[in-house]
Amino acid sequence: MFGFNYYTPTKVVFGKKTEEKVAELVREFGGTKVLIHYGGGSVIRSGLLGRVKGYLEAAGIPYVELGGAVPNPRLGLVYEGIELCRREKVDFLLGVGGGSAIDSAKAIGYGATNEGDVWDFYDYKRKAKACLPLGVILTIAATGSEMSDSSVITKEEGLVKRGYSSDLSRPRFAIMDPELTMTLPDYQTASGCTDILMHTMERYFTNGGNMEITDALAEGLLRTVMKNALILARDPLDYDARAEVMWAGSLSHNGLTGCGNDGGDWMTHKLEHELGGLYDVAHGAGLAALWGSWARYVMKNCLPRFVRFAVNVMGVTPESTDEETALRGIEALEDFFRSIHMPTNLRELGVKASEEDLVLMAKKCAIGVNGAKGSAMLLREEDMLAIYRAAR
Amino acid sequence: MFGFNYYTPTKVVFGKKTEEKVAELVREFGGTKVLIHYGGGSVIRSGLLGRVKGYLEAAGIPYVELGGAVPNPRLGLVYEGIELCRREKVDFLLGVGGGSAIDSAKAIGYGATNEGDVWDFYDYKRKAKACLPLGVILTIAATGSEMSDSSVITKEEGLVKRGYSSDLSRPRFAIMDPELTMTLPDYQTASGCTDILMHTMERYFTNGGNMEITDALAEGLLRTVMKNALILARDPLDYDARAEVMWAGSLSHNGLTGCGNDGGDWMTHKLEHELGGLYDVAHGAGLAALWGSWARYVMKNCLPRFVRFAVNVMGVTPESTDEETALRGIEALEDFFRSIHMPTNLRELGVKASEEDLVLMAKKCAIGVNGAKGSAMLLREEDMLAIYRAAR
Repeated sequence: MFGFNYYTPTKVVFGKKTEEKVAELVREFGGTKVLIHYGGGSVIRSGLLGRVKGYLEAAGIPYVELGGAVPNPRLGLVYEGIELCRREKVDFLLGVGGGSAIDSAKAIGYGATNEGDVWDFYDYKRKAKACLPLGVILTIAATGSEMSDSSVITKEEGLVKRGYSSDLSRPRFAIMDPELTMTLPDYQTASGCTDILMHTMERYFTNGGNMEITDALAEGLLRTVMKNALILARDPLDYDARAEVMWAGSLSHNGLTGCGNDGGDWMTHKLEHELGGLYDVAHGAGLAALWGSWARYVMKNCLPRFVRFAVNVMGVTPESTDEETALRGIEALEDFFRSIHMPTNLRELGVKASEEDLVLMAKKCAIGVNGAKGSAMLLREEDMLAIYRAAR
Repeated sequence: MFGFNYYTPTKVVFGKKTEEKVAELVREFGGTKVLIHYGGGSVIRSGLLGRVKGYLEAAGIPYVELGGAVPNPRLGLVYEGIELCRREKVDFLLGVGGGSAIDSAKAIGYGATNEGDVWDFYDYKRKAKACLPLGVILTIAATGSEMSDSSVITKEEGLVKRGYSSDLSRPRFAIMDPELTMTLPDYQTASGCTDILMHTMERYFTNGGNMEITDALAEGLLRTVMKNALILARDPLDYDARAEVMWAGSLSHNGLTGCGNDGGDWMTHKLEHELGGLYDVAHGAGLAALWGSWARYVMKNCLPRFVRFAVNVMGVTPESTDEETALRGIEALEDFFRSIHMPTNLRELGVKASEEDLVLMAKKCAIGVNGAKGSAMLLREEDMLAIYRAAR
């Protein structure tokens, strides 16, 4: 067991109509001039954006707005947001949407409060010294960015996708109304559930210092998400299932499910980042398409964890050998992915990757992790390529 | 399922020798003049207090100190602390010890920053508008006060024990080094484990709006604490078991295990508060002595939860009726209490309560909850008396 820091200062306000509290919360955390940052048209069409503006206006809180955050959010828009914040003397960011809008807002927050190029932080060149305070109205349960310290931005030039983590960017508040997620397309809902599972699984499959209570919480969370993802595949309007998944999304990535271990594996995410940079696929679907190939490749190096996962999470009855039990667990999760219409390889993801593309992704991935990464198994460029090939 | 707020801003710094970071953390959270508040001689004898002073001195952070916080901490000492803070212009409180020192520090924090009598807050007369920032070095895993919003103070006159809750008092940081808890007497360790279990169970046994993920986390936490309490009963120096219990103590009472429900039952705690006010027993032991009688009294009114508890937490094989299954679960927890040498009634607790005492406690308890309280079952004065009698 390792020591750890656990820091989740975000005030979560969860339940129906909680978005009505947005102005009160902005004020509570000191905001006097707000940039509302959002993505595409869905928050406009649903009327949410209009209502949010109305709440701010009614409270006399001035705001400017910037839309256009896309999945795998782009650096260009971040620069635009930084300019806008400086010009308009914005002192509070309000991200309205899913992980894209929130991640993009975090990057804008760094850029508006630090000198120099904000990409430096994502390019491992230096560390941010500040970030604008940020509040969130979440509309997609998936990335956990609403409580996390991390954000992922894609630089258009070379399609380089990189993450940066700092407690400075943890949102001050997160408004979570499960009803706001009900209009999501089924594929996005399933992709979000997959991302949530993976945030805990990345922390679960490690060879370093696991903690019994962390495992118990992680396993309970994983079982709950799977159960409710299946309910949502049948009935997208089930409020309780929406709420279970939404809250699990935050807990899955706020640090709780990793306390005491070595920090997690994270290679499925890193492998998917290259996929997402190159093909612009839904992040969760990309993770589902890669996970089985990753799991089979690393399984023998982390066997006790795969056996535990099979039995405690997937409900597998132990087979005669640990290896068989572990394999049944991997297959059971792939079966689950299929049952919510998630892909289990690149073909099913709709990606026809050439050998050159696989080589390029492995090369970029290796650079992105400074050569090698992974706790379940330390992976180098040749391992990454082998996993991409197996996933084809 | 109900909406909820979840707010745990405390930065947890967990692991061996983390107390060495105290000066850095005081500075991070803006402290320039510290009151170190602690309890009895154990933090002096162990050398911890001396080391803490050394760290502050080395960092050039001036401090004053106030010892003497006792279990069921007293209002008189709180007044003394408030005076000291005002006189010495203290701007940061450092609680070193267990729940008593931390609760007492929270009350000092309210008193030093609000006009009028600090007891008003505990007497439901008004709400605090501020609290001095507070950091904690935890030496007993039990009350969860290191991350919670609550504190319990006893007024000497009439031995009135009351709790007050406000986010203002949530500690800014909590240093948790499991090694610091290794010198606790076995009885205190077991009593602490019981308190931890009860913080989650008070939230678990409700008739209002439960949430699947909250239940899954709660059940995982309860199983983990029981398993590790048994390990500590055999080997008090087992670091991993100390760590599991210590972290569970914080999670059990920071709000996590109650998200989505109606706020919890809390009647075992209220009944124990009167016991603790009158007899000065160890809080956890008092809870253990009362719980079985409470559970049998309310069981039929909250049967599905008692059945779930029996099966998912205590591992009971379902009996032919739900009532039998529920009873087996209650008995199994009482067996567990006995196995860690906790009492299951007042006699075993060492309290010879006269009928007059029981009547007095029920009367004070009813006043303390404004007439009636409880979610598993709403209890009035006559119910409280019946439970006290059954526990005799």
